Amino acid sequence: MDDWNVVHGMKSMKAWVLGDPGQLSLINKPVPAPGVAEVLVRVDATAICATDLEVISHGPPAMIGGEPPFNRNFTPGHEYMGTIVEVGPTVDEFVVGERVAVEIHAGCGRCERCRQGMYTSCLNYGRNYGEFNKGHRANGFTTDGGFAQYAVNHVNTLVRVPEHLSDEVATLIVTAGTAMYGLDVLGGLVAGESLVVTGAGPIGLSAVAVGKALGASPVILTDIVDSRLAVGRRVGADVVLNAATEPVVDAVRGLTRGLGVNLVFECSGAPNAVNDAIHMLKRGGRVCLGAFSNDPALVDVGYIVTNNIYLYGIRGEGQSAVRRAASLIAQKKLDPSPLHTHTFALDQLPTAIRYFREKVDGAIKVVIKPQEFRD
Amino acid sequence: MDDWNVVHGMKSMKAWVLGDPGQLSLINKPVPAPGVAEVLVRVDATAICATDLEVISHGPPAMIGGEPPFNRNFTPGHEYMGTIVEVGPTVDEFVVGERVAVEIHAGCGRCERCRQGMYTSCLNYGRNYGEFNKGHRANGFTTDGGFAQYAVNHVNTLVRVPEHLSDEVATLIVTAGTAMYGLDVLGGLVAGESLVVTGAGPIGLSAVAVGKALGASPVILTDIVDSRLAVGRRVGADVVLNAATEPVVDAVRGLTRGLGVNLVFECSGAPNAVNDAIHMLKRGGRVCLGAFSNDPALVDVGYIVTNNIYLYGIRGEGQSAVRRAASLIAQKKLDPSPLHTHTFALDQLPTAIRYFREKVDGAIKVVIKPQEFRD
Amino acid sequence: MDDWNVVHGMKSMKAWVLGDPGQLSLINKPVPAPGVAEVLVRVDATAICATDLEVISHGPPAMIGGEPPFNRNFTPGHEYMGTIVEVGPTVDEFVVGERVAVEIHAGCGRCERCRQGMYTSCLNYGRNYGEFNKGHRANGFTTDGGFAQYAVNHVNTLVRVPEHLSDEVATLIVTAGTAMYGLDVLGGLVAGESLVVTGAGPIGLSAVAVGKALGASPVILTDIVDSRLAVGRRVGADVVLNAATEPVVDAVRGLTRGLGVNLVFECSGAPNAVNDAIHMLKRGGRVCLGAFSNDPALVDVGYIVTNNIYLYGIRGEGQSAVRRAASLIAQKKLDPSPLHTHTFALDQLPTAIRYFREKVDGAIKVVIKPQEFRD
Amino acid sequence: MDDWNVVHGMKSMKAWVLGDPGQLSLINKPVPAPGVAEVLVRVDATAICATDLEVISHGPPAMIGGEPPFNRNFTPGHEYMGTIVEVGPTVDEFVVGERVAVEIHAGCGRCERCRQGMYTSCLNYGRNYGEFNKGHRANGFTTDGGFAQYAVNHVNTLVRVPEHLSDEVATLIVTAGTAMYGLDVLGGLVAGESLVVTGAGPIGLSAVAVGKALGASPVILTDIVDSRLAVGRRVGADVVLNAATEPVVDAVRGLTRGLGVNLVFECSGAPNAVNDAIHMLKRGGRVCLGAFSNDPALVDVGYIVTNNIYLYGIRGEGQSAVRRAASLIAQKKLDPSPLHTHTFALDQLPTAIRYFREKVDGAIKVVIKPQEFRD
Repeated sequence: MDDWNVVHGMKSMKAWVLGDPGQLSLINKPVPAPGVAEVLVRVDATAICATDLEVISHGPPAMIGGEPPFNRNFTPGHEYMGTIVEVGPTVDEFVVGERVAVEIHAGCGRCERCRQGMYTSCLNYGRNYGEFNKGHRANGFTTDGGFAQYAVNHVNTLVRVPEHLSDEVATLIVTAGTAMYGLDVLGGLVAGESLVVTGAGPIGLSAVAVGKALGASPVILTDIVDSRLAVGRRVGADVVLNAATEPVVDAVRGLTRGLGVNLVFECSGAPNAVNDAIHMLKRGGRVCLGAFSNDPALVDVGYIVTNNIYLYGIRGEGQSAVRRAASLIAQKKLDPSPLHTHTFALDQLPTAIRYFREKVDGAIKVVIKPQEFRD
Repeated sequence: MDDWNVVHGMKSMKAWVLGDPGQLSLINKPVPAPGVAEVLVRVDATAICATDLEVISHGPPAMIGGEPPFNRNFTPGHEYMGTIVEVGPTVDEFVVGERVAVEIHAGCGRCERCRQGMYTSCLNYGRNYGEFNKGHRANGFTTDGGFAQYAVNHVNTLVRVPEHLSDEVATLIVTAGTAMYGLDVLGGLVAGESLVVTGAGPIGLSAVAVGKALGASPVILTDIVDSRLAVGRRVGADVVLNAATEPVVDAVRGLTRGLGVNLVFECSGAPNAVNDAIHMLKRGGRVCLGAFSNDPALVDVGYIVTNNIYLYGIRGEGQSAVRRAASLIAQKKLDPSPLHTHTFALDQLPTAIRYFREKVDGAIKVVIKPQEFRD
Repeated sequence: MDDWNVVHGMKSMKAWVLGDPGQLSLINKPVPAPGVAEVLVRVDATAICATDLEVISHGPPAMIGGEPPFNRNFTPGHEYMGTIVEVGPTVDEFVVGERVAVEIHAGCGRCERCRQGMYTSCLNYGRNYGEFNKGHRANGFTTDGGFAQYAVNHVNTLVRVPEHLSDEVATLIVTAGTAMYGLDVLGGLVAGESLVVTGAGPIGLSAVAVGKALGASPVILTDIVDSRLAVGRRVGADVVLNAATEPVVDAVRGLTRGLGVNLVFECSGAPNAVNDAIHMLKRGGRVCLGAFSNDPALVDVGYIVTNNIYLYGIRGEGQSAVRRAASLIAQKKLDPSPLHTHTFALDQLPTAIRYFREKVDGAIKVVIKPQEFRD
Repeated sequence: MDDWNVVHGMKSMKAWVLGDPGQLSLINKPVPAPGVAEVLVRVDATAICATDLEVISHGPPAMIGGEPPFNRNFTPGHEYMGTIVEVGPTVDEFVVGERVAVEIHAGCGRCERCRQGMYTSCLNYGRNYGEFNKGHRANGFTTDGGFAQYAVNHVNTLVRVPEHLSDEVATLIVTAGTAMYGLDVLGGLVAGESLVVTGAGPIGLSAVAVGKALGASPVILTDIVDSRLAVGRRVGADVVLNAATEPVVDAVRGLTRGLGVNLVFECSGAPNAVNDAIHMLKRGGRVCLGAFSNDPALVDVGYIVTNNIYLYGIRGEGQSAVRRAASLIAQKKLDPSPLHTHTFALDQLPTAIRYFREKVDGAIKVVIKPQEFRD
């Protein structure tokens, strides 16, 4: 408990900051102070996500119509958890000492989408600067994130960590929330429904685990890497299919008496993924799109229309899905721990990123511990 | 009213039937008898739809996994209306003498989708033959349709025609129902929402009219033919944009302070239509896909995901939307009459098809009157 | 435009304030200053609502678990409109000079319900004071309202007034929004659905008008006062039934071949209203509860269960329904003007209240004009 | 397998039939033959439900507007399972030899509700006789049920029994389906949501088990019998409250920091149950009504309105919920076996009914085995 007091008097912390695109430096930065409805979190673990690579090399993702001013000293990192060390004015939702995972998006609360509860689709995303600062925050995207020892966060982005979870695994709560959100938008009533998850990355594996926890049956996973498929089995896939060695659309139809499945959760971003997804579906089925590549994909639109197929792109982790995912984890109905493969200290971030990007040693989720240093 | 009695004793009628693909002949056929839950309809007007051309040249649309036996003597035509001249056993929903428009799809009532109320997505579509005849009917697709003097129909496909409507215009009730269905799946709460309709064919123009009747605002219509856009204005479009002469995505964004609209109803089937649609949308917006070309389209999937866009393919006219559209017409909130342009007699079907296909003389909806003959 | 400049330098305004329960005084008060995301509105017209009487005699409605501190100098009045005369920091959603109607509820933006978009059900309602002020505002309920010359409001509560609308009628926009919200929660797809509205007060009459604008058919209105039913006809009721002189449940079933209607919007608060509503319904129908008396009502729960009936209580005007209602008014599909019956000056509030409470001279909506004085 | 062949040649079976109200006799009756879309089921186990007592003493439940002709020789019993021994014409959905549980309702397939997928709310319920027989079947309510050795059933009412389940426990699949349907109409997204179930009868205990399987947390159960509450704990209740000894509304609010829970599933039919349910809820919460007494209940309607509470009456087990519940059982996420307490032979039905009605020896679900005889 001592370190919390230390924080209050602390002047600086270690943080990775972005200079020019691709240039990360570990520097000393002032510890930020929480404002109204905010808390200060001591970051205990931060996972690396593919979007981090995008942020580091290209800037905040998904900006429309004009970029924010380039932010020297900006700290990326958006999959993190930690311990609350200070609460800002008006906060009684959380208390000092609680362990929390942190969602990315705190909506502005005043645009059309936020008024609808669609805070991850906030129309003021990126407008957290200047005269008309709308207060939107996207931790690690447009506001300082988790590759640092401390971070300020809005209470809306905080989710309590189940006690039995390690810090490293707790970084996967938000990923599980994204998977939960995807299943929500697919209709939510997944118990007893057939589900294909395409792509065995962190979101795909989480989709398998959440789908299984909610009773989807069967849960079929496709990927092109056998070791990933093996992890898929550990988190609950009933059937795994290696798309590199067999025609997965035919296989799925074969497993379903030619009818196809009710739901597909696309998490691969492969060039033909959307097309494969729709052809795996039963007439009247639904696809959630949770991944993408940078290139446009050829899509058989006629098949979508004549088969009454719905497709749902999901941005982040809306509808408080992270809180519900955390509840499943607390109930031990969901165990994301097989997804965590590697841990590094704060100063090892470049190595951690390399492990993640190059899938070194079977890396899936690579975590850094901002309070630790190798040297 | 005399002719109803005549029917009961009648032995034959005139009907167009399909032989080899593309071969239509006008022959004499027995008048069919209505079974349980069916009625016999004297067909008073039948409109031509693009799908008819597909049926005539290629067979029933949207078959998956094996075709039905080729049906010599099959009568196409699926947009028709008429007068009930006989009711089958157990029918008290309708009485002889009522004018009705006819929907395409009568679901099997026993598959997963029919149990959900998704009868246009019936999993037994096309299985209306042989030992395991599931009773599904798709008038003019898999069972005899409206290019004939009489047709048998299931009560589920019948919708009463508002009194003030001519026979010709009444063939447009089902088209209006398709537009209504599309707006339903977009969420239904369209009052006050901004809507773009792409493509000013019969469904697109109906989407403009229904959207306007339900209070969408503004309603923006795009097409590449000025005369069609002019009809769009007549049925209620607030803004029309000619895609041949201006960049419509930019124009739509310009009309919405850069944000984009909430809803797009894609009715053009143009190669870049889906891509244009998603880029016309506000983050968190929705697209209904009501048209398509035969070729796959390049789609910017990443934009869909990062903007939380939902896309809904619609098959036919589900959720009793036709009945609700008919109510709007009866209330004179919706007037599809500007879409009807030409009328021909039964024996003039080949000419009528040519007018429709080649858009002769500004043809939009071309109707034949099966009880009339030119000679 | 001059007066806006005056405001900036103005020190005080006239406002009615509440002392002890039931004690209203017209005093001078400082003009408040808008904060972040707020604007200052010059109040041009304020209508009187039954809830105002409740607020004045008993305090803020619907408090659960502990009252807020009694607020001397509190200004009631929650159905008002006016002109923006100053915008607070970060506001670019509105500009000075715009005419706006004002919704009651600005949610806290951080509770479970606000995160879902259910801002009228904010769990921090009433917590706009003290150390843990959550920022929730309910104009005229828990924060100063419209029986004054100026009021500060959050941008989320502002809706643009269609140009053709008088100030007096513009106070009815929010009432129309409540009716729209009720129809939304009933499923939204009301076109062609049969609807009974019970009770011809302002919300009931608005429900008739909005239901009719959206295509409900038939729209049946019940009340016990013929003059109110006559107004109901003016705003679109297809059938009116006087519950004092005929058995309305039987009448409704008689009008629907014994089946009952699909939707009932209960706006009377009569003791047997809920019971009547459920017995007017078709099996599988839905009731919106928009009114109530202070006494519990006897309800035939068995009928609800065995007929799969859903009932929806509505609090205020959620889901941005007010904005959509305003759009219908701007499109002239909806005209609330027959509901406005009387206008008074600011200092005549007690008289205005008496007219409203005692329905003097057929009063329905009684409006005061805060910028005007009789003397 | 031999007995199936025997059936085809069999002329008669043992069946309980209803004479005058309350008069049950065990007689010989012809084995019925399955029609189109029907199968013949050898009934292996039939549970007794409170509604059976109602049917036996008063006739088919929930008839509106006129009773069907009194049906001498009618066989009640609607919670049964068995083995398919013959399939009717067009049936390939099931094959001879499959074990199936049987739902109550097969909708007519042609009314407004069936077209919506709401087959348990079929508007032609009870109209399975006479000239306008609409084909609706409600096994054991309006058509012959399971207190017999054989029964004919529509394929829509059949659900495959998971292999590991005993015949006796398999009669509880439909009860689990009712619980699942209730949770569906409450929104379906119950993972992580707080849930109170009031009443620990078979549906209440099933609601606890299904709610827990889907991740609701906490699940709180109330009843007035400790032994029932103990079974509640076995099927997953996190907290049990004895309403006879403590004020349950206060207790629930105490367990939820004064806020109340998100969902209440009312399964007690107690006089104050609805009122208690709404006061246990968080603002914006939802109640499912799955039970009722014959007397109307006093309900605080004002509380419903001012707290935006929704109430959902549920009739039977719609939305294919039984199939999804069966899937959860097959996955061993749901175990209804603790609800089964007693088994009797066919001729012991009167004793079985007495055990059920009087809760002899802690009876919850009492099952008869129609293929067995005590003597």
